[in-house]
Amino acid sequence: MELTDALLRIAADRGLDRVSVREVASAAGVSIGAVQYYFSTKDEMLAFAFRQVVDRTRARVSALKPAAGPRQTLAATLRQLLPLDARRLAECRVYLAFAARATTSPTLAAIQNATLTTIHEELRQTLASLPSLPSPPSGSGHPVLHPARDARLLLALVDGLMFDAVTAPTALPPATAAKTLDLYLERLLPGSD
Amino acid sequence: MELTDALLRIAADRGLDRVSVREVASAAGVSIGAVQYYFSTKDEMLAFAFRQVVDRTRARVSALKPAAGPRQTLAATLRQLLPLDARRLAECRVYLAFAARATTSPTLAAIQNATLTTIHEELRQTLASLPSLPSPPSGSGHPVLHPARDARLLLALVDGLMFDAVTAPTALPPATAAKTLDLYLERLLPGSD
Repeated sequence: MELTDALLRIAADRGLDRVSVREVASAAGVSIGAVQYYFSTKDEMLAFAFRQVVDRTRARVSALKPAAGPRQTLAATLRQLLPLDARRLAECRVYLAFAARATTSPTLAAIQNATLTTIHEELRQTLASLPSLPSPPSGSGHPVLHPARDARLLLALVDGLMFDAVTAPTALPPATAAKTLDLYLERLLPGSD
Repeated sequence: MELTDALLRIAADRGLDRVSVREVASAAGVSIGAVQYYFSTKDEMLAFAFRQVVDRTRARVSALKPAAGPRQTLAATLRQLLPLDARRLAECRVYLAFAARATTSPTLAAIQNATLTTIHEELRQTLASLPSLPSPPSGSGHPVLHPARDARLLLALVDGLMFDAVTAPTALPPATAAKTLDLYLERLLPGSD
């Protein structure tokens, strides 16, 4: 969709925090009225852009080829949330601009709360449905998977890797963020592929 | 300092993204000239506020009472970065506003990169200096500590817990974020207090 592409381009080039409806219309090659059909305020624009980013990410996850095992599947899924190419970097910038505004906009906060609650529940179900792993030797310190808590950990870790790689790519290059995620998943699911 | 308190109050109440120098001066009870001595543009204001937040956080960490052991010390330190009271929540909001702008401002990006690089190095040194833990039974899946990589993981995890708890406090209440951090540290340093 033209409007979403225009928003992502603007987010990538100079950020969404000072953009106007007029400018989005011009970048998308549509009328101001057409843009206002979808949003008329800055908050509505951020909410629209964020929903489009979520939809696009979900579409990419659905299109993933089957992986070797559950750990590889989880890794491939979560990589869709990291800024590993120009498209995902632009999406991450939209997410950051949206989330920063959510701290002072109740409407955006409700969307962000609902989105993270849904992703947490999906991760919890994924972790709960994993084929049972070999029991760790008692007292070995082997992590025992706890689906609800581990889903929170994993969600925070991916959001944090995204946050650090987008806001400080010298300190955490995106490729290093992906390797760091792999290290975490190898420890969490040591018997799995 | 009056100016910092005014910025933190505005960040907490309505965010820093639409605030003017005039408004900050009025909230701090000082002249516009006094404010402009510290910053005259929005980016300079965010950089100033972020530096103050970093300094305040470091001062709190330095003032921490000695904890039972290295894991408790690390937990107490990292909790200073989570939104566990009104003051830390306001600081986190400043951090988010700053970081979101850093994605499109090279000046802010340089500060954010330098800050995360420094924190990563401090965490790496802390992890490298831990008294050696009992060796895990071979093949037990016990995580073997890798200071540089584990410092990246830990930094991303804390940033992610902060991000989720500030932007989606219904999905991740701040107290749950702190418990999630504890769970992670117990697994990472199982033999420690």
